[in-house]
Amino acid sequence: MHRLDETIGRIERIDDALAAQTQARLDNLTKPRGSLGRLEELARQIVAITRNDAPETRNKVIFTMAGDHGVTREGVSAFPPEVTAQMVHNFLRRGAAINVLAEHVGARVVVVDMGVAADLPPHPELISRKTGYGTQNMVHGPAMTRDQAIRSVETGIEVFEAELSKGVDLAGTGEMGIGNTTPSSAIAAVITGRPVEEVTGRGTGIDDKMLARKIDVIKRAIEVNRPNREDALDVLHKVGGCEIGGLAGVILAAASKRVPVVIDGFISGAAALIAYQLEPDARDYMIAAHRSVERGHRIILDYLGLQPLLDLDLRLGEGTGAALALSLGEAAIKILTRMATFQSASVSERIAP
Amino acid sequence: MHRLDETIGRIERIDDALAAQTQARLDNLTKPRGSLGRLEELARQIVAITRNDAPETRNKVIFTMAGDHGVTREGVSAFPPEVTAQMVHNFLRRGAAINVLAEHVGARVVVVDMGVAADLPPHPELISRKTGYGTQNMVHGPAMTRDQAIRSVETGIEVFEAELSKGVDLAGTGEMGIGNTTPSSAIAAVITGRPVEEVTGRGTGIDDKMLARKIDVIKRAIEVNRPNREDALDVLHKVGGCEIGGLAGVILAAASKRVPVVIDGFISGAAALIAYQLEPDARDYMIAAHRSVERGHRIILDYLGLQPLLDLDLRLGEGTGAALALSLGEAAIKILTRMATFQSASVSERIAP
Repeated sequence: MHRLDETIGRIERIDDALAAQTQARLDNLTKPRGSLGRLEELARQIVAITRNDAPETRNKVIFTMAGDHGVTREGVSAFPPEVTAQMVHNFLRRGAAINVLAEHVGARVVVVDMGVAADLPPHPELISRKTGYGTQNMVHGPAMTRDQAIRSVETGIEVFEAELSKGVDLAGTGEMGIGNTTPSSAIAAVITGRPVEEVTGRGTGIDDKMLARKIDVIKRAIEVNRPNREDALDVLHKVGGCEIGGLAGVILAAASKRVPVVIDGFISGAAALIAYQLEPDARDYMIAAHRSVERGHRIILDYLGLQPLLDLDLRLGEGTGAALALSLGEAAIKILTRMATFQSASVSERIAP
Repeated sequence: MHRLDETIGRIERIDDALAAQTQARLDNLTKPRGSLGRLEELARQIVAITRNDAPETRNKVIFTMAGDHGVTREGVSAFPPEVTAQMVHNFLRRGAAINVLAEHVGARVVVVDMGVAADLPPHPELISRKTGYGTQNMVHGPAMTRDQAIRSVETGIEVFEAELSKGVDLAGTGEMGIGNTTPSSAIAAVITGRPVEEVTGRGTGIDDKMLARKIDVIKRAIEVNRPNREDALDVLHKVGGCEIGGLAGVILAAASKRVPVVIDGFISGAAALIAYQLEPDARDYMIAAHRSVERGHRIILDYLGLQPLLDLDLRLGEGTGAALALSLGEAAIKILTRMATFQSASVSERIAP
């Protein structure tokens, strides 16, 4: 785990002084002070993260990582497990929601096979970095070995760093994995310490009976594996998933390279919990895209101390919420760098207190 | 008021059957049903408005209308009144927030002088349609004559229709007018019947003392003028503004031409109240961009029965919130028209109930 330790070691606190300087610049633009609300907050955060007073936003990159989950054998998802591989094909043929929304906001999608339970045919845009053919069924034991968990995080770091050479100004997370709200709920329950019922939702749309089963499955998995909440890698290997580990790696790598990273929904939130437990300073590099419909997402965001930008009743994943939020990040930087000042536009300043 | 009556007469109820058909199409796309939440709702609404199953979104147009307000003499704004004209120049030089955000989302801004209290030098992109050199001070009598109010609404209709020849697929509203939260609060108080205190906020940023004065000024203006809430033109002429009337006209014209219209913030909301009182069916053509920080905006949205898309602590106006929301409208239509279906992508459908 040399690569992981090294990455964590490079994560510095963000520069709060730069945030304050940025607000002073925003206050000199032709608008009432603070009147762009959360866009101004985003501009401050992005400058403080990048240590650049005119950050680039051209290269917006969404890392959509796929993996399968042995726990689907317990009947916890509304869709059959083969859909994971089918949706990866759909991503590569640009027919999925993430393709449409990424194109809309001018982002590129990096599709990564972190652990799909099938051999996917090679494709020039598919990054094949399997750390397993899906996970094991966590009800009977660890979902992965500890070594696999470390490899999944380090693979995420490597994928991010490889992409960085092509340019990554703003990063986003996304995922695909039938059943992956189940390990995400398990991670959320263990790390936040909240009851399983409070962090377990309907995923792609299960009924009350399946929801009760899903809650029972998660409780049993936690009982069988006894993950140690003080050790994020223990949690990840026992009740996690390959794509969740990969995204934790993307988040840590982004933070280590001073790149703002937009966290998508519930599953990305579980990855953010892992990254945060590994290095709390990584939190300041995160931007919460939206509040998902998925029960428990609010609890994850509260634990991380992140306030979501959007609340559009999304519950799709793939990075769809991240795509929309990346556009807001870009808008915030354009406001900072392209608006006229009171002086340059010859606009009178305020008279009242 | 022939033009106004004719426009109102052309506004039809939107086609709910088309909304239902659109949901069926959305349910066949490669994503869990309903998982794109409010984007799906937007797609349904836009199809039902346009009666087009693949609506165009290329021509996104924000109508930013400017006007001055005699009531500024009562000291109700944090900025001096000359800022209205200065900001119109800023719009034309593309230095304002609305220019930056409109460019970001690929929208064009139509800048209209509806009633700025100064002669603005001609500019190829300025539409000069003054219905007055600002309004009169409504504390001493009507802000406009009834005829001026009608002309302001009809001017908005004419500006919209002229723009329609260049293409308007999705419209947005915006405004500039130092002091214009004051008439907007007066309109909101009269039409919704709520106390002035509940619909009056800090505008561009006034302190407690000025806020108390602003509330008092609005109460006196309502007392002096006794606007009749059953007659929207009476309300508009007594406690309104030229740009507010113009925007009401834009909204009615958009509805009459089956064009979705994104309502920006508080002042645009007051214009939407006028439009709604003139023709309640216009409401279904409106999309609420965001919930403004301005106190009372929530009351306007509740009265109209509109749920805002964004909640980003904006309070700038100009159409800035509308710009961001227009991009969501475009995203929604792209989802509807560009995503693969389960069949076309060979993705298995759900197994669970």
